Amino acid sequence: MGLKTVEWIPASSKALIPGKLRMIEQTRLPQELQFLETDRLEVIWEAIHLLRVRGAPAIGVAAAMGVVAGIQQDDAETSAALVSAVNRTADYLATSRPTAVNLFWALDRMRRVASENQHLNVPALKERLAREATAIRDEDAAMCRAIGEHGVTLLKDGWTILTHCNAGGLATAEFGTALAPVYVAKERGMNIRVISDETRPLLQGSRLTAWELNQAGIDVTIICDNMAAKVMREGKVQAVLVGSDRIAANGDVCNKIGTYGVAILARAHHIPFYALAPSSTFDLSIPHGDDIPIEERHPDEVVMGFGRRTGPEGVRVYSPAFDVTPAEYVTAIVCEKGLVRPPYGPGLRAIMEKQAT
Amino acid sequence: MGLKTVEWIPASSKALIPGKLRMIEQTRLPQELQFLETDRLEVIWEAIHLLRVRGAPAIGVAAAMGVVAGIQQDDAETSAALVSAVNRTADYLATSRPTAVNLFWALDRMRRVASENQHLNVPALKERLAREATAIRDEDAAMCRAIGEHGVTLLKDGWTILTHCNAGGLATAEFGTALAPVYVAKERGMNIRVISDETRPLLQGSRLTAWELNQAGIDVTIICDNMAAKVMREGKVQAVLVGSDRIAANGDVCNKIGTYGVAILARAHHIPFYALAPSSTFDLSIPHGDDIPIEERHPDEVVMGFGRRTGPEGVRVYSPAFDVTPAEYVTAIVCEKGLVRPPYGPGLRAIMEKQAT
Repeated sequence: MGLKTVEWIPASSKALIPGKLRMIEQTRLPQELQFLETDRLEVIWEAIHLLRVRGAPAIGVAAAMGVVAGIQQDDAETSAALVSAVNRTADYLATSRPTAVNLFWALDRMRRVASENQHLNVPALKERLAREATAIRDEDAAMCRAIGEHGVTLLKDGWTILTHCNAGGLATAEFGTALAPVYVAKERGMNIRVISDETRPLLQGSRLTAWELNQAGIDVTIICDNMAAKVMREGKVQAVLVGSDRIAANGDVCNKIGTYGVAILARAHHIPFYALAPSSTFDLSIPHGDDIPIEERHPDEVVMGFGRRTGPEGVRVYSPAFDVTPAEYVTAIVCEKGLVRPPYGPGLRAIMEKQAT
Repeated sequence: MGLKTVEWIPASSKALIPGKLRMIEQTRLPQELQFLETDRLEVIWEAIHLLRVRGAPAIGVAAAMGVVAGIQQDDAETSAALVSAVNRTADYLATSRPTAVNLFWALDRMRRVASENQHLNVPALKERLAREATAIRDEDAAMCRAIGEHGVTLLKDGWTILTHCNAGGLATAEFGTALAPVYVAKERGMNIRVISDETRPLLQGSRLTAWELNQAGIDVTIICDNMAAKVMREGKVQAVLVGSDRIAANGDVCNKIGTYGVAILARAHHIPFYALAPSSTFDLSIPHGDDIPIEERHPDEVVMGFGRRTGPEGVRVYSPAFDVTPAEYVTAIVCEKGLVRPPYGPGLRAIMEKQAT
């Protein structure tokens, strides 16, 4: 994606501080591309809370930059006072989306950097924190690019890939995970087309994935989720690429609801199915995907999702937010360190150790 | 379904004529149950055109009754003049939904009955035509009941079935096809629950199927299409029941888009998959399902379906209205004459001959 989902805009080229946080206002998509540029902490809190910025990595970046925005005008006279301000600001931002793991991870990293750098004077510590926030962004961008470079080796020129939900640039700092190989392929002059499941109930596939690919000049076609089997049978799909929220020790892949069905359809049509995610998504403490707790969403997202009632009053709706694709359906897992192929137990352990060394 | 989708309401108990056509206004569902009662031909034409009444059998019944409404006040002095009026009325109604095969079939039947009964005087011929229209309705109701009685033998008390789209009472005169066994089971005191795919893009599953089952006091849960794989894996589904628009000589089943995917998912979870349809749906002139032409729908149904844009302007949408489930995925086909099991080639031929004798 040529656009930056979240970035820090310094007021001058001399220093990162003062500056503003600039993000794509995702709730306005796909109708219009609008940016939110602000240095007000409350506005950033609300942006995370109301999903103006969404996707685990992008939320982490926004939160880290939110800490910087929150403390840059702070009148702390000592570094210790500034560290307290960082902690207060992080506590406040942590309430914006209480279940987002990446949010806490990014905020904790900012707290730690603050506390470890109390030897700096106040302006230097502020600048150090701003550098850390932009580093979080740059690391995420580099990780996505690495996923893309490993993933692109699985694709051939002229292929069409099918994807589900949005694991693209809008969910991360720049390239995304599932879509990263498509962007890398584009840079290399390969012609890769994309079929995007609209992804009910929240339509991230048609609202976001189709939007960002179209912006980047990549050929994309929207289908309803229930059309995936037909396009596969018609020979229109050569590979499935999806992201993941959590991968168990045995290689079971937890991702947006509908992913499991796509994996079964891919298998039935002899199409490879790839999960692409940073290795931070691998949770080796969970032996099987069945042990991953699945959030259930509000019925109104299904039967009132478009401003008017499309299901009868009082009828039960079942709306799990995620599902688990058993490892046996996953052709390979791609992370920033490389490809993992079955058997996933030893493969995932090995790649995690590679990171640890 | 306890409610009648389309019926003829005579002004007195002495004769069918004069009378009015009464139908459920389906475009108001699921928000409110409203009936349209009219003897005005233009209103009936518009009701068919605007899908206030939909589903092949229900359209046929409405059209036949529309002919009666159209000619009951006709001042023809001879039976020959009345036959001309029948033909004019039928020609007009045939323009309401130009691709609906059942519409033409019902109108032709009314023309034929008119022409074959020219020996009757004008009032008697009018009454004869009204009797034919109500016979079309009653035959459809009897056929649905027969499908239900054959189909219920496949179900066990306490089961949950999954269905896709609306092949229920709202599509026919009364009981439907795919849902008929559920209604028969209810009459017999069996406890059958239903999971209804919402069925994108037009949401017949949540708007109509969930509504009519709920009205009938049958336990129904709405899911998004992409959740079917998960509910199957959770062991929540014991059988899949779907309708069909056309069944090829080899048993390939053409039905609403998404049906093929559901069939693959059912197979992967060892769940039986049944197609239920009148034998008039069997088209033995078509050797394979791949030969069935598939209508493509307008992109706006997918990306503008709820009054606001949910996909980016200018991005391609692929929206086939139907798909074909290969016979190998179909556990049995149920029609008003009984069950057909594989191999379908000889089975379908045999059951068609049974009808011919």
